Amino acid sequence: MKEKITVIKVGGKIVEESNSLGDLLNRFANIEGHKVLIHGGGRSATRIAERLGIESRMVNGRRITDEETLQVVTMVYGGLVNKNIVAQLQARGINALGLTGADCNIIKAHKRPVTDIDYGFVGDVESVNGEMLAGLIGRGVVPVIAPLTHDGKGNMLNTNADTMAAETAKALSAFFDVTLTYCFELPGVMRNPEDNDSLIPCITRAAYRELLADGTISGGMIPKIDNAFNAIENGVSEVVITKADSIDGSQGTHIIA
Amino acid sequence: MKEKITVIKVGGKIVEESNSLGDLLNRFANIEGHKVLIHGGGRSATRIAERLGIESRMVNGRRITDEETLQVVTMVYGGLVNKNIVAQLQARGINALGLTGADCNIIKAHKRPVTDIDYGFVGDVESVNGEMLAGLIGRGVVPVIAPLTHDGKGNMLNTNADTMAAETAKALSAFFDVTLTYCFELPGVMRNPEDNDSLIPCITRAAYRELLADGTISGGMIPKIDNAFNAIENGVSEVVITKADSIDGSQGTHIIA
Repeated sequence: MKEKITVIKVGGKIVEESNSLGDLLNRFANIEGHKVLIHGGGRSATRIAERLGIESRMVNGRRITDEETLQVVTMVYGGLVNKNIVAQLQARGINALGLTGADCNIIKAHKRPVTDIDYGFVGDVESVNGEMLAGLIGRGVVPVIAPLTHDGKGNMLNTNADTMAAETAKALSAFFDVTLTYCFELPGVMRNPEDNDSLIPCITRAAYRELLADGTISGGMIPKIDNAFNAIENGVSEVVITKADSIDGSQGTHIIA
Repeated sequence: MKEKITVIKVGGKIVEESNSLGDLLNRFANIEGHKVLIHGGGRSATRIAERLGIESRMVNGRRITDEETLQVVTMVYGGLVNKNIVAQLQARGINALGLTGADCNIIKAHKRPVTDIDYGFVGDVESVNGEMLAGLIGRGVVPVIAPLTHDGKGNMLNTNADTMAAETAKALSAFFDVTLTYCFELPGVMRNPEDNDSLIPCITRAAYRELLADGTISGGMIPKIDNAFNAIENGVSEVVITKADSIDGSQGTHIIA
């Protein structure tokens, strides 16, 4: 039987405020067994870019990443946000290792082809080196992964953290029994985001089609749930979308293959 | 017999200009066997700090690191400079892994005590986890180390790269036959920096005392050579101070125990 591992994706908002970050890291540190943290950092990137006089342009929730913006996200995601998390996990006795996709070549991507929109230095994930990651994890290391990949030609690429989490969880499923948890600001997928009692406890493919058709699920939730189905249908044992204070998986929306 | 490893320290100037960085990484990639790269990045930090409206204050060549400056060096050293090197080494077929002292707790430090000068978040190295580093290196990984450590209490610390190189080389000497090479802009330690033919090919402790007494060695060279002696007198097999285009160790100043 494979050993268990928990892969947690947390959004920028949670890791960028010191109170919520501290709470999250306390909970993360308490998760038993192997674990991986994948984080965002968009708000910090926007804030630093603004201070540097660089305009942040978003299309469909994705950052247009020109060369200057690539430098900002490389600094902010790979340096500021990532190392802050790593240092704070070390203080909690967790042997964290900050990684981008370039480090140990763990996640390779290619620059997104230009269609009607040129996203610039944005990467679509090609491959995750599950064996290298599993080797590190086997040494007691806890990977903390920033939303950056590389193209193998010397360029870093800005990459969606939800997708990186799904692809990482899939690659690790060859070595571990994987639970993937997406944390965000709501208790899970809601019928009505205004109503805290409207949590949808589980979503199957059939239910997802209905929830899309009737407009219950829309906007930014769609790619998140698509990533969740991608994971659960490709080797990941359990996928949960939940609030950061429920990363033990006790609550939230379970995605069912 | 222990396997050989080469630990290379390169200053900011070399890694911050794309031409000289490319040349250096080509040479570094060609070094046979195990290797480690430790880099600076001060010029980039000063440039980004300036753009963010943060003043860079230097005392004795060391950066006064208040909280805002710590954020800048964490971003720039740990993110911008480090990940650029890692991505470019990956493109050269080198399995680089970017690290700060916090990552895998490889280099722990304490905040420098305040005397007449308060350096702020500057770290003095306490311990290097040679076993963890050797384990990574044994897996074919090439560590690329940024000049940042952590205090184990959740804080990153700005740390001198020359010192980190010496301490890392010493810690690795328990596992490897270590050559430590300090690269900078001159061919080595010079009798007269203006005269390219005045290279001092080797320096013993006795010669060092004389060169200090007659003023041949002064200023910023003193801590560099102190670090070099610290390494050679504590397990490191060979220490060379040389130009970036001679990192094969063929030229430069050899420090003799």
